[in-house]
Amino acid sequence: MRPSTLGIIGLGAIGGSIARQAKLAGIPTVLGWSPAPGERVAAAQQGALDDSPHRAQDIARAVELLVLAAPPAANLQLLETLAPHLPGSALVTDTGSVKRAIVGRAEALGLGRRFAGSHPLAGSHRRGFEASQADLFRGAVVYVTPAANGDGAAREIAHFWEDVLEAEAVMVEASRHDAQLAVTSHVPQVIASLLGNFLARHAPPGASFGSGARDATRLAASDSALWTEILLMNRDEILPALRSLEEPLGTLERALETGDAGALSAWLGRASAWRRGLDA
Amino acid sequence: MRPSTLGIIGLGAIGGSIARQAKLAGIPTVLGWSPAPGERVAAAQQGALDDSPHRAQDIARAVELLVLAAPPAANLQLLETLAPHLPGSALVTDTGSVKRAIVGRAEALGLGRRFAGSHPLAGSHRRGFEASQADLFRGAVVYVTPAANGDGAAREIAHFWEDVLEAEAVMVEASRHDAQLAVTSHVPQVIASLLGNFLARHAPPGASFGSGARDATRLAASDSALWTEILLMNRDEILPALRSLEEPLGTLERALETGDAGALSAWLGRASAWRRGLDA
Repeated sequence: MRPSTLGIIGLGAIGGSIARQAKLAGIPTVLGWSPAPGERVAAAQQGALDDSPHRAQDIARAVELLVLAAPPAANLQLLETLAPHLPGSALVTDTGSVKRAIVGRAEALGLGRRFAGSHPLAGSHRRGFEASQADLFRGAVVYVTPAANGDGAAREIAHFWEDVLEAEAVMVEASRHDAQLAVTSHVPQVIASLLGNFLARHAPPGASFGSGARDATRLAASDSALWTEILLMNRDEILPALRSLEEPLGTLERALETGDAGALSAWLGRASAWRRGLDA
Repeated sequence: MRPSTLGIIGLGAIGGSIARQAKLAGIPTVLGWSPAPGERVAAAQQGALDDSPHRAQDIARAVELLVLAAPPAANLQLLETLAPHLPGSALVTDTGSVKRAIVGRAEALGLGRRFAGSHPLAGSHRRGFEASQADLFRGAVVYVTPAANGDGAAREIAHFWEDVLEAEAVMVEASRHDAQLAVTSHVPQVIASLLGNFLARHAPPGASFGSGARDATRLAASDSALWTEILLMNRDEILPALRSLEEPLGTLERALETGDAGALSAWLGRASAWRRGLDA
């Protein structure tokens, strides 16, 4: 779909970037709301929005497509409070990085045929409208997760990502999405934060860090409140994944203890081959 | 010191960069050796070397300063085999990232007054002469670790790094260096490789990774043979450091299990505050 009126709730790095790019792509009316009045003003002044009403429900009433781009827990709440205000034909999506909870909520609210979850693999540890950019989604993978009986809505929303935001939409079932993201995103976040916690406690004050340690901990600078929500919403997948780190860590420690250069080299080599393959 | 004849054993990213920058800085004669003939030819053809004799000992005989830029275990061996060929006034340093072992070896060989260890915080996971660059050390921290009674040599070698290679030399005792680097560099390498091992095993084939997971695992692509040597040489510091990761990991897992958003947010926040401080 290519909505003539698009509504965006949440004008941070994700919501703000959707607004910017939608305007550049020629969407006639883009409405946006943020709980932070400064973000509403900035987005309107910079041409990312046509209007920014005081109440989110005034946006819901006017749109053909509503995008919830608040943090995940707020999106769950917004879906519930805004649903009664939506026109009967409007579609809804969100942009959170955990999908089972919100797809389940949409189904429970009877919105299954009009909702699909979205998760754009874009953004950074920077946050707020000031971190938005007009080309954030160009070429980025966006997972689209249908609700039960919602394949039609999911196709429309996938088309919106591809046609308006120039992203690559990938359809995936919500629970499979959450299992995959636990591995590819949530565990990496936990590990970067674990290393950050370790260094905060053990690094000498003023110690120098090479680019390696800086890269390895970059994710740790992410927004704690947002990641608290993500980790809690997906803990059923994340906890077993974290426990499966114990085995390779034990292998490494035993190789060090026994001075087993062959085992150590093989252990490092598996990770090295995998990582080099990622850039190949 | 500003040697009129500089010798470099090992022409990889570190040794090759020293050669390039020393020539640009006007060192009259730079001699280099590598076990790989192709690296010797490339370095000479690209103007990084004045000559590249077939035997490393022919370099040792001619120099005022000898830099061992091979991997750490090879440097230990080279120090022993080349020492008898050095002129009586020549100084020696190395560029490895573990310092107690080679400082101890220099002292045992009676070279304490003519040797200091060096560890430039530069380079990347790329390797070989093709990864060398003429400005690699400009502004980089270089740790210089004196041997017993070797303060004079350490001052000369620190001056070489600063005057010729435009680095910032920081004098530190070898065992303190190794304890600090276990925390700031070796544990980050292990953690990045642990995450790489985990992802190699658990990520679905063809899964997409955001910049966060790519950054967090970049170090995992490092040279396995080199890191096997580093980790084994410094295992007395690294093993206890790795064990101290268990406590914060346990804190995180308990917060997830009990759904304790406050504890989770505090845990993530400590790492976030530390990492943001690193860039401030």
